[in-house]
Amino acid sequence: MTDKFVGYLAKSAGAKFEKAEFEAGPLHPEHVEIDIKYGGVCHSDLSMWDNEWGISQYPFIGGHEAVGTICRIGDQVKNLKVGQTVGVGWNVESCMHCQSCMSGSHQMCPTVQPTIVHHHGGFANKLRAHWGWTIPLPEGVDPSSAGPLMCGGITVFSPLYENDIRPTDRVGVIGIGGLGHMALKFLNAWGCEVTAFTSNPSKFEEAKRLGAHKVLATHDKEALSKAASSFEMILVTANAPLEWDALINCLTPNGRLHIVGAVTEPIPLKVPQLISRGASVSASPTGSPSVITKMLEFAGRHKLAPQVEHFPMSKINEAFDHLKSGKARYRIVLDADF
Amino acid sequence: MTDKFVGYLAKSAGAKFEKAEFEAGPLHPEHVEIDIKYGGVCHSDLSMWDNEWGISQYPFIGGHEAVGTICRIGDQVKNLKVGQTVGVGWNVESCMHCQSCMSGSHQMCPTVQPTIVHHHGGFANKLRAHWGWTIPLPEGVDPSSAGPLMCGGITVFSPLYENDIRPTDRVGVIGIGGLGHMALKFLNAWGCEVTAFTSNPSKFEEAKRLGAHKVLATHDKEALSKAASSFEMILVTANAPLEWDALINCLTPNGRLHIVGAVTEPIPLKVPQLISRGASVSASPTGSPSVITKMLEFAGRHKLAPQVEHFPMSKINEAFDHLKSGKARYRIVLDADF
Repeated sequence: MTDKFVGYLAKSAGAKFEKAEFEAGPLHPEHVEIDIKYGGVCHSDLSMWDNEWGISQYPFIGGHEAVGTICRIGDQVKNLKVGQTVGVGWNVESCMHCQSCMSGSHQMCPTVQPTIVHHHGGFANKLRAHWGWTIPLPEGVDPSSAGPLMCGGITVFSPLYENDIRPTDRVGVIGIGGLGHMALKFLNAWGCEVTAFTSNPSKFEEAKRLGAHKVLATHDKEALSKAASSFEMILVTANAPLEWDALINCLTPNGRLHIVGAVTEPIPLKVPQLISRGASVSASPTGSPSVITKMLEFAGRHKLAPQVEHFPMSKINEAFDHLKSGKARYRIVLDADF
Repeated sequence: MTDKFVGYLAKSAGAKFEKAEFEAGPLHPEHVEIDIKYGGVCHSDLSMWDNEWGISQYPFIGGHEAVGTICRIGDQVKNLKVGQTVGVGWNVESCMHCQSCMSGSHQMCPTVQPTIVHHHGGFANKLRAHWGWTIPLPEGVDPSSAGPLMCGGITVFSPLYENDIRPTDRVGVIGIGGLGHMALKFLNAWGCEVTAFTSNPSKFEEAKRLGAHKVLATHDKEALSKAASSFEMILVTANAPLEWDALINCLTPNGRLHIVGAVTEPIPLKVPQLISRGASVSASPTGSPSVITKMLEFAGRHKLAPQVEHFPMSKINEAFDHLKSGKARYRIVLDADF
């Protein structure tokens, strides 16, 4: 019941994390306080730690794939109880009354509060979040691997739900990492024909085990040319420049290239190519609380879980090194050991 | 009943049109033959005449917004009769049996035959077309101004229909010309809040008369900045480079920038901007026969017609000059006078 929490702080960009106390302030009436048990490590934790996007504040506490048990609730919280196991993802709060919030797209709220941007994240003993962004884990979802669903998972699940992907569709997934491996699992359970695109031949067999029916080499122009007009959707989870023209050529009529990877280089979009196939190029951030809930139910019902490697939270610096090296298969979870 | 037609031929790129006979060959059992009464002049007639896209064949006969009366039908035509008033647009034929044709997206057929590409168009006394692409004009549609609906009209109508634009949406239209002026009329009748974007101040009042509720200067960065997050869709009918970033910034969350203008310069698409608002950039060619039929019914019921200027077809060279000068308000129709 203390208003002082303990977490892993980096004092400057890329500095080693150190365990330290920090002030949490009073509990807001609409917030809940969560005893953190597990925290997934996402690539954007790295980017924020390094101040890659120029928006980080220090001391920095990462962690936005948090799972734990509610230990305290604000006076105005009606839908959650102490003792419930819940998850919190990229966002901890939104205004709840703007047009986006009121229409169920809370992630589009102009004042949405991300968990680790100008806010202390979940690599700590406790985390607070608005009741609207605190999602109970349903039956069938293992708390120890649920963290990565809360950011990586919803980022690839939301585009399937929001774009009305059908089980009869053929969908490609580019990049088989933290996000991509979850996309393969979701799409397989969604009933689609699933093709993994990877530039790493060592992942070919692995991708099939994860749910892909077919595997293509991302930069193999001949293979891409043979796959012309064969995908209703291609979901890009990689953040590197790709063979954009060849990929758009792989879309069926009215197909969609959907990007969730933080591709930094502009895509030179050729309008005549887009016109001739009636194609869309789109992108999206994380999903809404309502769709996070649907995703967790879907994962529970289909017994889907991210493939994770565990580190004790006290080994956070080793865990970040491991993620940075590109060797994580496929998502790291930190187990709280305060 | 002759198999020789008379039309206006250009013998080389940009050469004056000359009246001449040409061979039509035997009538295909699934085709109808149409006595042409009216022919709209589209910007792509200019582009094909000039061989701007490098795909023209000479002698070239333009015309793909053709309206006339069926004078002969092939043995296998079951749904059309001699004497019916019909229109033919950008395409005259498709295979009818591929996945696109069978699912109602005939315009996406890999072997779809455009009316003026490797095919003689409708600036002639007669035109032949497959029954599937020959659309009867419903009650309330005036044949003398219906031609421009068949290409320009459907090109802007189809995106509203296919993307489920709702009457509660706010839609912007960029470019108030042949296509854009029809988009304003359709969107007004569709029930939307309509904003015209034009770089020509002389069109401000005109745009309102055509159906716009608001008008914005296309290149006024301050005005665009004020219009941030306010359009569910922006429909681009212009073919010049635009302030793409500022326009995407004008989209609501999950909004769509949809392009039907033949923009030739690649659009440098910034993925982070797209992600942050969950936006789509899409494009489309003409529409399907089924949606052309719906558009004509909609136009008839709402008493919508393109605003046209008439020239006798024998003055085709003057008409092309007029279109090229940018002075057409807003679509030219050639009245057949053979």
